[in-house]
Parts: sequence; C-alpha cells; structure tokens
Amino acid sequence: MTMHHHNHSHMTIHGFNAHKHYGWDNTFTPIAEVDSGQIITYEIMEASGGQFTKKATKEDIKQINFEKVNPVAGPVYVKGAEPGDTLEVEMINFQQLDWGWTAIIPGFGLLSDHFTEPAMKTYDLTKGNKTEFLPGIDLFIKPFPGTVGVALPENGHFNVVPPRKNGGNIDVRHLTRGTKLYLPVWVEGALFSIGDTHAAQGDGEVCGTAIEASMETTVRIKLHKGKSIPEPRYEIPGIPTPEADSKGYFVTTGHGTDLASASKKAISYMIEYLVDTYRMTDEEAYMLCSVAVDLRISEIVNMPNVLVSAFLPNSIFY
Amino acid sequence: MTMHHHNHSHMTIHGFNAHKHYGWDNTFTPIAEVDSGQIITYEIMEASGGQFTKKATKEDIKQINFEKVNPVAGPVYVKGAEPGDTLEVEMINFQQLDWGWTAIIPGFGLLSDHFTEPAMKTYDLTKGNKTEFLPGIDLFIKPFPGTVGVALPENGHFNVVPPRKNGGNIDVRHLTRGTKLYLPVWVEGALFSIGDTHAAQGDGEVCGTAIEASMETTVRIKLHKGKSIPEPRYEIPGIPTPEADSKGYFVTTGHGTDLASASKKAISYMIEYLVDTYRMTDEEAYMLCSVAVDLRISEIVNMPNVLVSAFLPNSIFY
Repeated sequence: MTMHHHNHSHMTIHGFNAHKHYGWDNTFTPIAEVDSGQIITYEIMEASGGQFTKKATKEDIKQINFEKVNPVAGPVYVKGAEPGDTLEVEMINFQQLDWGWTAIIPGFGLLSDHFTEPAMKTYDLTKGNKTEFLPGIDLFIKPFPGTVGVALPENGHFNVVPPRKNGGNIDVRHLTRGTKLYLPVWVEGALFSIGDTHAAQGDGEVCGTAIEASMETTVRIKLHKGKSIPEPRYEIPGIPTPEADSKGYFVTTGHGTDLASASKKAISYMIEYLVDTYRMTDEEAYMLCSVAVDLRISEIVNMPNVLVSAFLPNSIFY
Repeated sequence: MTMHHHNHSHMTIHGFNAHKHYGWDNTFTPIAEVDSGQIITYEIMEASGGQFTKKATKEDIKQINFEKVNPVAGPVYVKGAEPGDTLEVEMINFQQLDWGWTAIIPGFGLLSDHFTEPAMKTYDLTKGNKTEFLPGIDLFIKPFPGTVGVALPENGHFNVVPPRKNGGNIDVRHLTRGTKLYLPVWVEGALFSIGDTHAAQGDGEVCGTAIEASMETTVRIKLHKGKSIPEPRYEIPGIPTPEADSKGYFVTTGHGTDLASASKKAISYMIEYLVDTYRMTDEEAYMLCSVAVDLRISEIVNMPNVLVSAFLPNSIFY
C-alpha cells in the first residue's frame, strides 16, 4: 500500500519510483480520485528517473535512456472536473531535498550547437536554503515542479518535453511555495500529474536542465467550475525573487531579428563574462546561467530588431 | 548660448528642442566635447518631438510626421574614446516631469495585426511617484531613457527605431536612477546621444510606446580604456522593481514554436483578463500591458515549444 489518507483532505502518495508515467495520454488509468480542496503530498523522482546518482559524472550522460527521462507522478482524477473548468494547483511545500544535478546533454539546450560535449555537476542540498555551485558562489534553493499538467483532449501519446496548452514541462521557476497555478481542464477528471522537481533555475533554463532533484512535494488541488482559460496562468503572492534581487544584477544584452538569436547572444556574452571574471570553465558558466540567470524580453516592437536581457544576480557571489 | 559648464565636471545642455538629431550617423557634428567623468544634464524632448501635447487625442496620431519621431540629444564627443573602449553611462537623475503619453500607432506594436486603429492616452506626471492610468490603477513613475547609444562604425544614416550593437532604441526599462549602462565605443570620440525618455514601461513595451515624457535627464559619462564589449550591458545596483514587486503578480503564459508567437498569446490573454476583470477597453488593456506588464522567457529549451510569461503587478491596483 503506497497511498494514505491522513484525513479527508490530505493524501500522501508514497514511493519515489511508483505511480509515475511518461508523456501525456488521456487513457492513462488514474492512481487516485480526489475532491476539490484535497492536499496531496508526493514523493517526486528527479528528472533522470533514477538513472543518475549523487556521484554522477559526464560518463553517465552518455548512457542515459531517454525513454525513462522526466517521469511524472499521476494521473490523479479530480471528481467533477469537466472540460471548460479550471484546476488550481497551490504550491504548499517542498522538503526532504538531498542532492541535485545539472547537466549539459548534447543536442539539448539553447547553445547546443556550441556545447557538443556532455557535462555534469552535482549539489549537496542538505545545508539549508543555499547550495554551493563553486567556492564563492552559493545558489538560493527555491524548489518548484518543472512539469505540472493535465491530460490533453487529443487522443494519443504526447512526448513530455514541450510545454502545451495542458501545461506540462513548462519549467516556470516561479511555481515556488505559495504560488497558485491555474490549468485548463481538457478531459473529464482533469487527470492531473506533477514531476520534474527543481531546486533552483533561472528564467529560460538555458542549458536544458535546472538543479534537478527528488523531493517531497505538497500541493492543494482546487476545482473552479465553469471558469475557462486557454492556457496555464499563475499568481505569485509576494515578491517573486527577494533573495536573488537583494544585491542587484549584472546584465548582458543581445539584439537580433528574433528573440531566440538575441537570447543566444545575451547568454553567450554572459558566459564570456563569467569565464573572464570568475574561475570557471565555459561549461560551468553555461550551467550557472541555466540555474541562476533570468532571460527577460526588453524590447519586442522596435522592428526589425528585438532585445533580450540576461540577468545575473550579484547575491550569489560572496 | 544654450550650454553651460557649472564647473569642470557638470555641463547642462539647455533647450528641449535644441541639439537633437534623428537616427545614427558617424558624420554628425558633436554639440560638445567632454572628458571622462563629466556629468551632463540634458533637457530631453519626448518621442513625438513636440508633435503631441498633453491634450493629444487619437486624431493627432493620424497627422504624425514619422521623420520627426524619436529625436535624441547629441552627439557628445568623449575625449580619448577610441574603438575598442567602453563608455559607461550612469543614470544620475530624472526630474521636471510634467505630462506623458502612450499611443497605439497603427502598423507598430506586438499586436499590430489586431489593433489597427489609433489610440491615445495622456498622463499627469506632476503628482509624486505615481500617475493614474484609470481610476483604481496607479502606475509607479520609474523614469529612464529609451534611446541611449553611440555612433556606429558603418558609414551612412541608420534609422533610429531598431536597437543595434551601438545601443540606440533599446528601451531597457531598468536604466533607471543608479543603473550603469555600458556601451561599446565604435568610433573616435564615441559620439554619445540620449533621448526618448520614458516615465514608465514594462519589459517588452508591447504596444510600441511607453509613458513618453519630456524630462531633465542627468547622466555621468565615464570612459573605460581598452575594455571591449560586443554589445550593451548594464548593472542594476539594487532590487530592480521593489514598488511593482511588493504585492505579487498575476501572470499569463503563452506557448508556441517561437518566442514572438508565445509572447503574442501571453499578452492577448492578459488583455482579455484585464478587460474581463476591470473596467477598461481592449485598447486601454493593451496600453496598460505596454507600460506595466513584464515579458519573461520562462522556457526556451523544451523543443519544439517555448513558453513566455506576462507579469502584471498587483501593486498598481488599489
């Protein structure tokens, strides 16, 4: 038995390796049925699905089975949910973090044309609200689920990688404790799933991975009947990133005829800056951008060029 | 005589309508020569170049002469500046704000396919650090120059609209008091110009205009010899947007196969939300997005889709 109801409104789904699925399919059998208002605690497996350990190296990346990547826990059937409703997912708590990893996976990431070799970094996540990236650089731990979604109305099996109108692998780093995510319901029961927990990430997740980490994750599910939304939205209750903000930012910009090329330039300049300014390799700088640097769209209307800014928080350096 | 040296390190360039130029051309005659360390106060004309007044309506947009749009003050010749150097521009002060405007200009803006009719809104900027957008909605006044740049190395005349490697119309809303902008020097003397002052703007400036406003603008110019950068960068000394952040954000997301289409969806959803939730028209909602909503790149690597978030600060509503 791996599921326990503490009471009518709190369910714990035990087993980091249980009750998981890959991709989205509206024919998956629900692992549980819940009422609106239910609090659910999950033991969520990190995105390698157990293929990496805290001693992982870049050699392990070469062996990875992509079929087992990014498992999500679920689906949970929400009683009464029908297409056209909205499902609220409140982020209640994230705990029991132990270790995490960030990797450069060849063929994946914003600068995959440049970074063609694998790289791996692991972290100790047991030392409070920070974790060391390199000596002199501490990252703030701000856990959130990278993948949160519901079943799609279309039949068939959909790969877990891209975000879609059902949410999914949206990797929105602001889904931290207190944030409420709203998902459109596309099928009866919604069929809610969650996974891919991250200990930290920058807006954009440029190298393709965050600080990937298993953790106990608690959310509250609430159904809003007859309220229809076209795509996910969310509410952040207070200051989004007070820790990162406190000492200001160093910001590179890139311009281009499209936002992707502008983003590539901004991140490339940031990598050069990090390598020139601190003791780190190109690969470390790229991974640091993925876990700590935020991409913002500064200018999107001054045709034919746009401008993207990459924000590096000064507060991570001590 | 319109220029006064208060002392060796502070120069005031008087005349909102004087010493301005349109576009970028490295053959423009400098209006002044300055040393590194110079503080300069400019009287900067709003982006219509005096074609609009505080009583402007959408009828005035139909008459606009685009040849006179976005004048910048300058250029200033920085003694000793050579290609390969970096010019630092510290934002010292912005004052004497009187009134401002935001417009929807047909053919311009992220949603120009949808918003084909002109619209105009004007603001009273004399009431402290806020200005009313509509009853119940007050925007924080955070002035900055939308256009800051130096001459390009290429010969010829370049339109002022797009941002380029010389800076220019970058519309980076974080160039507020205290921020230091770094520009690459491409020609002898740098030929620095500044203009297009904004009283407020969201990241992205989606409708194509901010709160456009004339204001007295003071910057400090500093030359960094032999330090070369490829494109503009900047340093924000503290918390970027404490006023906007204080009460959290309501956020819409849009996914798509490119960041531009994802941004269009996120902003379209935000406009629908604003129209449904508050008493305003589509045009007002679009303009509110331009002056108060921030576009962030949430996900740029989960191919084939990307995700953009549009952040609406709760603090503007009372």
